[in-house]
Amino acid sequence: MRIAVIGTGVFGRTLAQALQRAGHDVAVGTRDPGETSQREDWLGVDVPLQQLAVVAGDAELVVNATNGGASLAALGEVGSDHLAGKVLLDVSNPLDFSQGFPPTLSVKDTDSLAEQIQRAFPDAKVVKALNTVTVSVAVDPGLVGNGDTTVFAASDDAEAREVVIELLRELGWVDIIELDGLSNARGLEMWLPLWVRLMGPLGTAEFNLKIVR
Amino acid sequence: MRIAVIGTGVFGRTLAQALQRAGHDVAVGTRDPGETSQREDWLGVDVPLQQLAVVAGDAELVVNATNGGASLAALGEVGSDHLAGKVLLDVSNPLDFSQGFPPTLSVKDTDSLAEQIQRAFPDAKVVKALNTVTVSVAVDPGLVGNGDTTVFAASDDAEAREVVIELLRELGWVDIIELDGLSNARGLEMWLPLWVRLMGPLGTAEFNLKIVR
Repeated sequence: MRIAVIGTGVFGRTLAQALQRAGHDVAVGTRDPGETSQREDWLGVDVPLQQLAVVAGDAELVVNATNGGASLAALGEVGSDHLAGKVLLDVSNPLDFSQGFPPTLSVKDTDSLAEQIQRAFPDAKVVKALNTVTVSVAVDPGLVGNGDTTVFAASDDAEAREVVIELLRELGWVDIIELDGLSNARGLEMWLPLWVRLMGPLGTAEFNLKIVR
Repeated sequence: MRIAVIGTGVFGRTLAQALQRAGHDVAVGTRDPGETSQREDWLGVDVPLQQLAVVAGDAELVVNATNGGASLAALGEVGSDHLAGKVLLDVSNPLDFSQGFPPTLSVKDTDSLAEQIQRAFPDAKVVKALNTVTVSVAVDPGLVGNGDTTVFAASDDAEAREVVIELLRELGWVDIIELDGLSNARGLEMWLPLWVRLMGPLGTAEFNLKIVR
């Protein structure tokens, strides 16, 4: 599948490489491909970089892996015409570090970043997933609990949810809880305030929850 | 240990009975003991009922098991003098059902109900715990995953935390994550928005998270 990953941070880069290894045709969108390619963390990375306004043109699926605070602007540069009709996998979190650590959420409870994105790009099919884990676990769930931990996929669109669930399976996820309705992203994003507070006591970001039932 | 449980709902009643079975001297506080004792859900319950203003007088530990919206008022009736110097185990959640289901949180992110209680009763030693599970699991963790799921205990007071952790062990909890600082209750309370959204898809409230690391 042709996949455009928006965001050149560690999450976007690592996920793009993992999706490429899984056999997909992946490109990463950035404002200035020349500049990004010179960045230390991009040396040796063999994923094509393209301008935001170009990268999603022929993609079937777009991943929002930008910082939560920059997501709407970055996706605006990608362009609503390039997002229309496509699955938009949103892995971001609306974390606000302006008051230090732990971060607060810039949107919560009665709304979510995923829903803000859906409202801004009504013709995209937004699916919230993978925002609940650190990227090393996201692309390699076997890192914790022999892979027996839980991820979620929330969307208003059942078909788009299925596309994302298939991608999650390719990455190695087995326990995937499907949530019908993008408003469930409120719950998924509000997991972060506990997640960030567990990192210290656990001494690692490589942990995850298992929903035991 | 002499324990006063504040709140006569299913959480308070069930927890009081479990603590009594564990060998503690438990009484439940209510506005009108006569009326509560006549309630259908209290028939056959062998835990003494006492007035709020009386119940905590000689207690060593007080449990807040009231509805989140009523907690500050109920604890006010218990009286700050009867809470001073005592461990105050807060199992409540600031759930607001006024807009229907799923509920929102009346306090979140930059504050928590546990911290509000601590500020209102500065001489109590507030510990947040057990708010993350349904009461049947709280008192019998073996109900899910053979007991191998996670609970948390957050407090500013390490000694008070230890008292609660010992109680949790008596109830059967093994995987207890200790969080230093009552502000961690923000994370514990913000787990609820995901919890309430999982109940439907899972078809039960008898589930819990295991923090796998």
